[in-house]
Amino acid sequence: MSDMIKIAVDAMGGDNSPKKIIDGIIRNHQSNNDSFYKIFGDENKISELIKGKIDNDHYEILHTENVVKSTDSPLEGAKRGKNTSMWLAIESVKNKEADIVVSAGNTGALLVVSKLNLKMIENIDKPALSALWPNKKGMSVVLDLGANIECSSKNLLDFSIMGASLYTSLYPNDKPNVGLLNIGSEELKGNEIIKETYQILNDKNSNNYDFAGYIEGNHLMDGDVNVIVSDGFTGNVALKTAEGTANFITSELKTAMTGTLIGKISSLLNISNLNKFKKRLDPRLYNGAIFIGLDSPVVKSHGGTDYIGFSNSLDVCYRIVKGNLIEKIKQNI
Amino acid sequence: MSDMIKIAVDAMGGDNSPKKIIDGIIRNHQSNNDSFYKIFGDENKISELIKGKIDNDHYEILHTENVVKSTDSPLEGAKRGKNTSMWLAIESVKNKEADIVVSAGNTGALLVVSKLNLKMIENIDKPALSALWPNKKGMSVVLDLGANIECSSKNLLDFSIMGASLYTSLYPNDKPNVGLLNIGSEELKGNEIIKETYQILNDKNSNNYDFAGYIEGNHLMDGDVNVIVSDGFTGNVALKTAEGTANFITSELKTAMTGTLIGKISSLLNISNLNKFKKRLDPRLYNGAIFIGLDSPVVKSHGGTDYIGFSNSLDVCYRIVKGNLIEKIKQNI
Repeated sequence: MSDMIKIAVDAMGGDNSPKKIIDGIIRNHQSNNDSFYKIFGDENKISELIKGKIDNDHYEILHTENVVKSTDSPLEGAKRGKNTSMWLAIESVKNKEADIVVSAGNTGALLVVSKLNLKMIENIDKPALSALWPNKKGMSVVLDLGANIECSSKNLLDFSIMGASLYTSLYPNDKPNVGLLNIGSEELKGNEIIKETYQILNDKNSNNYDFAGYIEGNHLMDGDVNVIVSDGFTGNVALKTAEGTANFITSELKTAMTGTLIGKISSLLNISNLNKFKKRLDPRLYNGAIFIGLDSPVVKSHGGTDYIGFSNSLDVCYRIVKGNLIEKIKQNI
Repeated sequence: MSDMIKIAVDAMGGDNSPKKIIDGIIRNHQSNNDSFYKIFGDENKISELIKGKIDNDHYEILHTENVVKSTDSPLEGAKRGKNTSMWLAIESVKNKEADIVVSAGNTGALLVVSKLNLKMIENIDKPALSALWPNKKGMSVVLDLGANIECSSKNLLDFSIMGASLYTSLYPNDKPNVGLLNIGSEELKGNEIIKETYQILNDKNSNNYDFAGYIEGNHLMDGDVNVIVSDGFTGNVALKTAEGTANFITSELKTAMTGTLIGKISSLLNISNLNKFKKRLDPRLYNGAIFIGLDSPVVKSHGGTDYIGFSNSLDVCYRIVKGNLIEKIKQNI
């Protein structure tokens, strides 16, 4: 166990838990067999789901009585306190009993409980919520996605460093470039904080990333910028709007493709191509938002994802620990 | 001419002008034959393109020597002054020689020259840039899309009134509802200005629209909210991100569909359905952003659109004048 990557898992968060969580662990174990899972939640249910599926020396169940509900406010969730699977999973990272923690539960509560238990990395003022975003050439990292509604230029600079460190943890061979989300590509546009951040990033020569200037929403998915930095309000609106647009377009496409008999037949013929298309855009592929800036990484799986999505968020955990994310941030800050 | 709707057209703005502008006028005239076009630009070029295509009593060419360039800064564009097709077209609205003005030229310059020439509607503090946005059930109006980076709650309230008036001008049979773009559906989220606006809109009982509360980016295209209100920074990021996402998905789809021989054949079979799909999402269909809050409406066509897109922006002009937009705003403010 000592050489293994130790992932603390809140087994009780999200829809269809703990079943999808345990199935996700079983799936993930097939590709990452040097992971050890510390599973927090209802012991009876969990042990029934997992026994015989994974060797005993790859997991441990830590029984908890209570759960944070998806309907809790962040504060209500935190007040449920030390008996919840979420709290104890996070605490195990604080106590160095695990390298990283993942939950598919209540996002607001996860952020609050993490901040209560974990210290900030020195010289970072605010943690940010980051995620992987698909583009024409692969994936980019986007942050902040909603942890901080208002941000100073210092915050945005921190996000640049943290985002670049995350990118190189996940993709070790690339030197990332960083773009600042704005409404115009000319230096003149945007608010004062963004202009100030532009100057700071432009003047600063970092060995760890290049500064690519401003990026507009319509270029987020071109794949030319690896790390996209924004305040949490704008980043959240952009992410959600992209989600809504993708949903709108695929539902329009479905209507159009199945409108006539010939349409139905040719869609059937074309099914392998359509499946490739669906697979490329499958949100389960890039499931796992990373709460970054605390001295241990915290990963948030989408609550509505299935076991495949949850398994992919475990993969994100694995790559982050392997990639030494926290050390990278400390070196670059 | 006196009963006709008089549209002042800047014929020199955007790509491939004046050809696409004049072709757009000719196309638009076929459906709106009670429009009169006051065309500002290079008389020789325009008259060659238009003569014989439209009855003489439906248009007038007003020769101008100079043009605002797409590469001009807003101020440079304005400084080119009174000899430009853009300036004179706007001035003709100011002088009540036309009911509305449309340009496919430099957006920043158009906003500045409009503000220099036209008065604000009384009790409106800032004009906003609004546009039509497709959704699952039809179209919604979104504003502000970039005219104002920072907005007070009074501005956002004004945008609600103006947006609702625009919606009922375009769709006279519907009583619109208004949503406030935010990052959470609970009352707790968002910044102070948005929360303040929420309270004002919630307390205010308007006969002209219903207040639908907050709306998140992923629901913009569900079609349940008719008017979406936001500051210009957030609105612009949302619009551009939706554009980029649509572009990304359709390019992924194209790659997937034409990847194999069977894919190519079945795509051919399915061509009428794919065309329906393309048509539904064709940005030319909802071309024409409306600069709203001045005592005459100003319409901005996309610079890169073709004659069909420009013709549709002329249609927007026609419907706005028919729908008495400015009167509606004055009554509701």
